[in-house]
Amino acid sequence: MTNTQVTLIQIDNYGPWTVTPAPRRETDLQTLQSRLFADLSQQIGAHGGYAFFTRFDNIIAVTNGMDVPDHARIQESIGNRYPVTISMGIGLGETPAEALVEATTRLQEQGSAQDQDRREVLLGSTLNPTERTDEDIQIAHFDVIDATGKYTDQLDAFSTFIHIEQGYATLMRHLHDEYGGLAFFVGGDNVIAVCPELETPEYEAIIEHVESTANVTLQVGVGAGSTAHDAGMAAKHGLEVCREEGTRVEGSLAD
Amino acid sequence: MTNTQVTLIQIDNYGPWTVTPAPRRETDLQTLQSRLFADLSQQIGAHGGYAFFTRFDNIIAVTNGMDVPDHARIQESIGNRYPVTISMGIGLGETPAEALVEATTRLQEQGSAQDQDRREVLLGSTLNPTERTDEDIQIAHFDVIDATGKYTDQLDAFSTFIHIEQGYATLMRHLHDEYGGLAFFVGGDNVIAVCPELETPEYEAIIEHVESTANVTLQVGVGAGSTAHDAGMAAKHGLEVCREEGTRVEGSLAD
Amino acid sequence: MTNTQVTLIQIDNYGPWTVTPAPRRETDLQTLQSRLFADLSQQIGAHGGYAFFTRFDNIIAVTNGMDVPDHARIQESIGNRYPVTISMGIGLGETPAEALVEATTRLQEQGSAQDQDRREVLLGSTLNPTERTDEDIQIAHFDVIDATGKYTDQLDAFSTFIHIEQGYATLMRHLHDEYGGLAFFVGGDNVIAVCPELETPEYEAIIEHVESTANVTLQVGVGAGSTAHDAGMAAKHGLEVCREEGTRVEGSLAD
Amino acid sequence: MTNTQVTLIQIDNYGPWTVTPAPRRETDLQTLQSRLFADLSQQIGAHGGYAFFTRFDNIIAVTNGMDVPDHARIQESIGNRYPVTISMGIGLGETPAEALVEATTRLQEQGSAQDQDRREVLLGSTLNPTERTDEDIQIAHFDVIDATGKYTDQLDAFSTFIHIEQGYATLMRHLHDEYGGLAFFVGGDNVIAVCPELETPEYEAIIEHVESTANVTLQVGVGAGSTAHDAGMAAKHGLEVCREEGTRVEGSLAD
Repeated sequence: MTNTQVTLIQIDNYGPWTVTPAPRRETDLQTLQSRLFADLSQQIGAHGGYAFFTRFDNIIAVTNGMDVPDHARIQESIGNRYPVTISMGIGLGETPAEALVEATTRLQEQGSAQDQDRREVLLGSTLNPTERTDEDIQIAHFDVIDATGKYTDQLDAFSTFIHIEQGYATLMRHLHDEYGGLAFFVGGDNVIAVCPELETPEYEAIIEHVESTANVTLQVGVGAGSTAHDAGMAAKHGLEVCREEGTRVEGSLAD
Repeated sequence: MTNTQVTLIQIDNYGPWTVTPAPRRETDLQTLQSRLFADLSQQIGAHGGYAFFTRFDNIIAVTNGMDVPDHARIQESIGNRYPVTISMGIGLGETPAEALVEATTRLQEQGSAQDQDRREVLLGSTLNPTERTDEDIQIAHFDVIDATGKYTDQLDAFSTFIHIEQGYATLMRHLHDEYGGLAFFVGGDNVIAVCPELETPEYEAIIEHVESTANVTLQVGVGAGSTAHDAGMAAKHGLEVCREEGTRVEGSLAD
Repeated sequence: MTNTQVTLIQIDNYGPWTVTPAPRRETDLQTLQSRLFADLSQQIGAHGGYAFFTRFDNIIAVTNGMDVPDHARIQESIGNRYPVTISMGIGLGETPAEALVEATTRLQEQGSAQDQDRREVLLGSTLNPTERTDEDIQIAHFDVIDATGKYTDQLDAFSTFIHIEQGYATLMRHLHDEYGGLAFFVGGDNVIAVCPELETPEYEAIIEHVESTANVTLQVGVGAGSTAHDAGMAAKHGLEVCREEGTRVEGSLAD
Repeated sequence: MTNTQVTLIQIDNYGPWTVTPAPRRETDLQTLQSRLFADLSQQIGAHGGYAFFTRFDNIIAVTNGMDVPDHARIQESIGNRYPVTISMGIGLGETPAEALVEATTRLQEQGSAQDQDRREVLLGSTLNPTERTDEDIQIAHFDVIDATGKYTDQLDAFSTFIHIEQGYATLMRHLHDEYGGLAFFVGGDNVIAVCPELETPEYEAIIEHVESTANVTLQVGVGAGSTAHDAGMAAKHGLEVCREEGTRVEGSLAD
């Protein structure tokens, strides 16, 4: 049974800020958002966690191994270096989706994402170190089989992007609604999903669903660990096996 | 008639690099990708252009106003500061989609995105300054009506994300396949599209299509200009009018 | 005769901000300052200019080739992405020192660097494009002869640093007070100086002064150009000649 | 008695890289160096340490609280994201200067800073956690009394810089040669020094030496702690007391 700790990171009152006193230059907003995400990725990554850019103003992170002071230090650092501040809600759950529901509720109870007075909230509790196990996190790393040969080198760049995007949209909804997993596009043709404890037949069914719905063929490496990094590296190695051996599902899985 | 100059920016041989000699730490890759994009956004933005993160290893930019040496300087700067290099293909077309087909072809003719020997290619020609007009670019800036009130403050963060993502997946495919426009998710609930010359009834039809297909209700501000920045700022102001007046389509449009 | 355009960039009210409401974490300040400088270096560099970190809250730049709107765009971009804002004063002069006096006066007339109400000032005028020449800028790129062999690989890192720092302190004062040049430590054992029109005997005298005063032996490459970048690249090539041939002063100089 | 852990961070073979195959654009080098330092400052700061930019290609850090795997993770992260790699030597000592001698020796024994084959060295051992105390680090935070009123708002920017630079050059040499302390300019008119256990009369003598030698008048806040951050925050608060009360030396000191 997985035991995922999820943190929702929300830029405080961001929408209104982007148009006050007048709409701000789009390329500055893009730079601001992507650098803020890059910093969070490094800071959370230093503790073995994973951050996903998601909507950029709402960033979802897997933070097993981080306590509340670790969160506070990151929040302070962003507040010292950016023109915006962030709030953080932490949740726990047997599935990643349940953990995120709790994390979201923490923030929503304190006010709207566009509430001028809700700033730098940090709420929720983290996993007790004594209860942590090597199977708290399951990461599934998907990619598109031969994406470069079939798409990138053949189609124009947007047509390739459409294929990948339709595959992702199908996968992220299906994995969430059917299994309580959270799937994130991470660039190229890669999707990293934080999953509950799923096994080979379930991953095969998921791949089949995406193929029949969006006509995109995926392979997946799966790993478990006490942190997102440990699980994620195992998943990456699983995916390398898929690439070498032409299999569809590899990793530390029961059959 | 629009006259869009599109540049496809591709990280050279990126997929293989990320797993050589072994899979690299995911949070480092995320930081690398998002900072590389942030730099391109600033550098292209300094010339009035727009860069979209797209797949991060394949970044699409609207570069009206930039010549080939401007591209070369950015390419050199990335090569000097990152462990990876970029290739660039430039294309022109009456629709943004056509321009991107040309830009993509330039790169594909030089070799695969995963070809070790294809490095720092820069091909294609740019608009003649004497032929540029104030209507070369049309930008449509979409967002979801009351996304904060209806989704962000009500649903958990992933359920909100699913809604926005399904809306985007529908919009980007429809706009491309029916009109030759290129739509990019830019964070929050915002999508910026580079369009051919479309008018109010067409935008109304597009919004209706997304609503009936993905159950997400959009509004849109539209602007024209000689650069992406000029058109984009006009589009942002149009969107502000939508927000204030409760209308669906605003901006510099024929009726 | 050189014709240097110098811009003084000052972070507005920075000292008080760093301790409000309480002293901020030093490593965040260091990150903020060095990234802000890095952005300015890129943005000014895109126009062929040079920015020097100087005191970090007072950054001096050589901006031949940039007009006032170019400055305004950079000022806006920093204001959109940092928790602090910058003011800019532009000056012209036959010597770099005179140009900086004018640039500084522009800002001082508007209020103190620690005035809460002096924000985002941008004053001064730039070179008329028709008056620009290929000899407007002279750059001298100094380094310490065999610094790695004599210092870095022999002494402990701070003792090496002391040598380099004493050499720099001597050079920067002498060049300013005797010639009206502005010398900046740029890392390693390198100093880049923006000079008036000096010739070989004067560079020889400068090197001798530093040797006799601080016991550090320098070599120098010199270049001229219409921008800092053009002059600076010529200077770098001159320095490569010094390294190869064991000479002390090389570049585009009268004898 | 202090017990400082110092890490010397050296960019591998940096000098040759900057001119291979030809001199690289200076503004790219400046951006690369200052961003690399900014990242180290964040990464080391996350563990309570301090990094000082020093020569940029040789960065000195106080790393009490970090073990060897913490260092390795940072080294890997830089290697994954920059076109250059870093080596690290760690040293311990009763004075900071002694610790740095040890740290430097670790690297020098492995080869030159310009040795093509010496890459990503990580050597030395860190403090045993059981031996750490709340007085392992002493930080002295100096600034120039009324620098804004006397210099920044009165003199031109370079003349102000000369004063601050001469004061720093005097202080850094004196503190090193007489006491074994390491002083670093950190921007504005601020110098942060890592010291052995000094007391009020010694700080008064240091200030007097700088005043009589370089004609710059300093004040100083002093703090102790088990990490650079803890000691440094106490020092900052001491400096605030100096500013409010017009005293010269404040902090957690014996008389």
